[in-house]
Amino acid sequence: MKYFFSTLLLIVSISITAQSIKIDDEKALTDFHLSALTQGKSYEWLDYLSNQIGGRMSGTVAAEKAVKWTESIMKEVGFDKVWLQAVTVPHWERGEKEEAFYTHNTKKIKVPIAALGNSIATPKKGITAEIIEVKSIAEAEQLGHQLKGKIVFFNVSMKSSNLRTGTSYGETAGIRVNSAKTVGKFGALGVIIRSLTTSLDDFPHTGVMSYRDIPENEKIPAAAISTNAAELLSKHLKENPQLKFYFKQNCQNFEPKQSYNVIGELTGSEIPNKYIVVGGHLDSWDLGQGSHDNGTGVVQSIEAVRLFKVNNIKPINTLRVVLFMNEENSGTGSIKYAADVKEKNEIHLAALESDSGGFTPRGFSIDSNQKNFELMQSWKPLFEKYGIYEFNKGGSGADTSDLKNENILLVGYKPDGHRYFDYHHAANDTFDKVNKRELELGAAAMASLLYLMDSYLD
Amino acid sequence: MKYFFSTLLLIVSISITAQSIKIDDEKALTDFHLSALTQGKSYEWLDYLSNQIGGRMSGTVAAEKAVKWTESIMKEVGFDKVWLQAVTVPHWERGEKEEAFYTHNTKKIKVPIAALGNSIATPKKGITAEIIEVKSIAEAEQLGHQLKGKIVFFNVSMKSSNLRTGTSYGETAGIRVNSAKTVGKFGALGVIIRSLTTSLDDFPHTGVMSYRDIPENEKIPAAAISTNAAELLSKHLKENPQLKFYFKQNCQNFEPKQSYNVIGELTGSEIPNKYIVVGGHLDSWDLGQGSHDNGTGVVQSIEAVRLFKVNNIKPINTLRVVLFMNEENSGTGSIKYAADVKEKNEIHLAALESDSGGFTPRGFSIDSNQKNFELMQSWKPLFEKYGIYEFNKGGSGADTSDLKNENILLVGYKPDGHRYFDYHHAANDTFDKVNKRELELGAAAMASLLYLMDSYLD
Repeated sequence: MKYFFSTLLLIVSISITAQSIKIDDEKALTDFHLSALTQGKSYEWLDYLSNQIGGRMSGTVAAEKAVKWTESIMKEVGFDKVWLQAVTVPHWERGEKEEAFYTHNTKKIKVPIAALGNSIATPKKGITAEIIEVKSIAEAEQLGHQLKGKIVFFNVSMKSSNLRTGTSYGETAGIRVNSAKTVGKFGALGVIIRSLTTSLDDFPHTGVMSYRDIPENEKIPAAAISTNAAELLSKHLKENPQLKFYFKQNCQNFEPKQSYNVIGELTGSEIPNKYIVVGGHLDSWDLGQGSHDNGTGVVQSIEAVRLFKVNNIKPINTLRVVLFMNEENSGTGSIKYAADVKEKNEIHLAALESDSGGFTPRGFSIDSNQKNFELMQSWKPLFEKYGIYEFNKGGSGADTSDLKNENILLVGYKPDGHRYFDYHHAANDTFDKVNKRELELGAAAMASLLYLMDSYLD
Repeated sequence: MKYFFSTLLLIVSISITAQSIKIDDEKALTDFHLSALTQGKSYEWLDYLSNQIGGRMSGTVAAEKAVKWTESIMKEVGFDKVWLQAVTVPHWERGEKEEAFYTHNTKKIKVPIAALGNSIATPKKGITAEIIEVKSIAEAEQLGHQLKGKIVFFNVSMKSSNLRTGTSYGETAGIRVNSAKTVGKFGALGVIIRSLTTSLDDFPHTGVMSYRDIPENEKIPAAAISTNAAELLSKHLKENPQLKFYFKQNCQNFEPKQSYNVIGELTGSEIPNKYIVVGGHLDSWDLGQGSHDNGTGVVQSIEAVRLFKVNNIKPINTLRVVLFMNEENSGTGSIKYAADVKEKNEIHLAALESDSGGFTPRGFSIDSNQKNFELMQSWKPLFEKYGIYEFNKGGSGADTSDLKNENILLVGYKPDGHRYFDYHHAANDTFDKVNKRELELGAAAMASLLYLMDSYLD
């Protein structure tokens, strides 16, 4: 009888605890959302980062301005500690705007073009050569020495049929990264790729390419042209396969430079030596303002932690915002951060990354052991009223995946993705493409997840 | 023993049927989505409707063009029947662009302004008067005759704290409709409202207002100013409560005109005399291109039925697209359609309305008896892979609610709503604000629901 009674008591007490935790959780989530929507700072910050600082490619003056400015914002918000972590970054600049055209039926067709990041320049007078269209790297390999003396045009569309645009990007991004190093050895003179976007428009989309370790003499310049231009060029090539294409680009690789990850902490009230990281990358490409990629991740990460402060919620563990430098061009910032964590043997319970744009929240992508994956599932009901239903297995993002170990819960914040690649790495990735409410709701969703991680992980 | 055996057989056969129906359903949904994303027509149609026809207010030449053009599109798609249903519509026109300004600290402040639909004009020389700010209709009522000789400024913000923007709109739209008729009787000279949008920008948002049955001499002109202008005016009024405001508008009510609902059918292969309606409204306000409100609903409705044709799926019941004329300015199109249904005693199984913009699909709003509500719930699992999770009770929309009876399943298509009121009834409701994928996925979601309605309703 006594045994039965105490079991009953235990059950009652567990259920009361669970109930009260649940009410606390719901209240915290309500508070975060209300604060974000009515007195949020993320939109105002993104305005500054976009319109006052602008595109901030690693190694540039703008990137250094972004370092200093976000450091000052974190201090202003009242983080307990704010510091810079030195990172060596590549320094590539586009130089004077690129130029491209060809003549078709005596008409000069101008082509919107942008050099790919890391590419070498063309000779000063540019390159004029026959251009040959291919549909894959395999096809180019097969053509082999037939590519000699030619410009190779990789006209590979990002598939519109996939339900997730990220899937289509994953399927085609290899073309951008690897095409130049593949065809350089056959004596091709240059590479032109179709921009990686599902939309048909006039913006060339840049992004990283790599020569890996190929010999200097096999390095050839690579650039992206807009999808509309790619469609037209393909049509004209069918009518005139001998068509000659001209392009000129003026980009240059300089010596690597020192830059910084920007880090700020809200110290844990009970277990300050365990960390939960939230972050995005501070650098961007240079063509637009880097607003969706990844200004939104930067301001949402700071805002998510600010939402704890304004609601007077003291985290148990230490919350750390990390603004990673140089995600776009070799990830030296995330490598440096992860190495430092390892060296100091810092225990990281979780890391949450926002690097998929500032659109309406849809869910989270989870990279963890089964126990933490199931813990995340148990939080789903709390998010449904905010329209967040997707708690799927998947990668967390380029900057946090270096932290992977058996115990850490790595999560990528996943907003609605249909518009993302319309702006990705292009001149139209600007502040006006970001909706205030969507941005703010993302920050609130991130704060909500940090709160639950902080409450339930150990 | 025999009894047991046949029960078992029955169970097996039911489970096989259920299984095969499910596979068919999944395949239909896959086919709709694939066709919409890879060979959809909705975006191209919306481009034409927006950029070639543009804003199409009831009674205008543009509205008549839209009637003729959508009729021709339905014929081109190969609907079995296409016809026009005569509807009498009000005919109000804005006339020459409005003007408004005031002087503050010797500086002339220009105010972006637009007359509300149905409003009378100001006198030709405009109105200059002291302007008094109020926060509600109740406050204005309380001030009563103190409003005499003044312009009344209803500075009521659409709340940003609600999770659904539609909720906030519902809470404030009454101000737009009713404020002029409320304060006219106190001798106020005019009404200025703060635009109904959660964003801070420079666009005035128009929309319907009504004098109901008040005497002619109590009718006063009403207009909306942009939210930024409202913020500034409010600030300046605090500094200078005697501030005089000038506005001039040139709108006019003409005689009612004949216009049309545009209707097209895909005849049911088995039960042609039972109908499932899908529709949106063809008219719009005049300031922008009426792209989200409601060009998207128009093209999605036609596209949803076209997706049956291109996938060679023959509906059991008759699918009927109804493009309602004059939703915006008194709903005579939907009243006419519903009256006609009643007169002919046509059995309508269901009606699906798209009038919430062309954004990413999120769910459906359901107005039906419990049995049909539960049937809708049983379809939820089929939609999850498309990111559609919300099957909630709620209204279907202004044009289909007139069809309400005990049996009909009324459904509103509900896309993501955070951006909708940024563009609603304003000059920036233009084609470029619509994302192709989001629009197409909406059409596919609508086709999917029509398919399930057609398969399971009786």
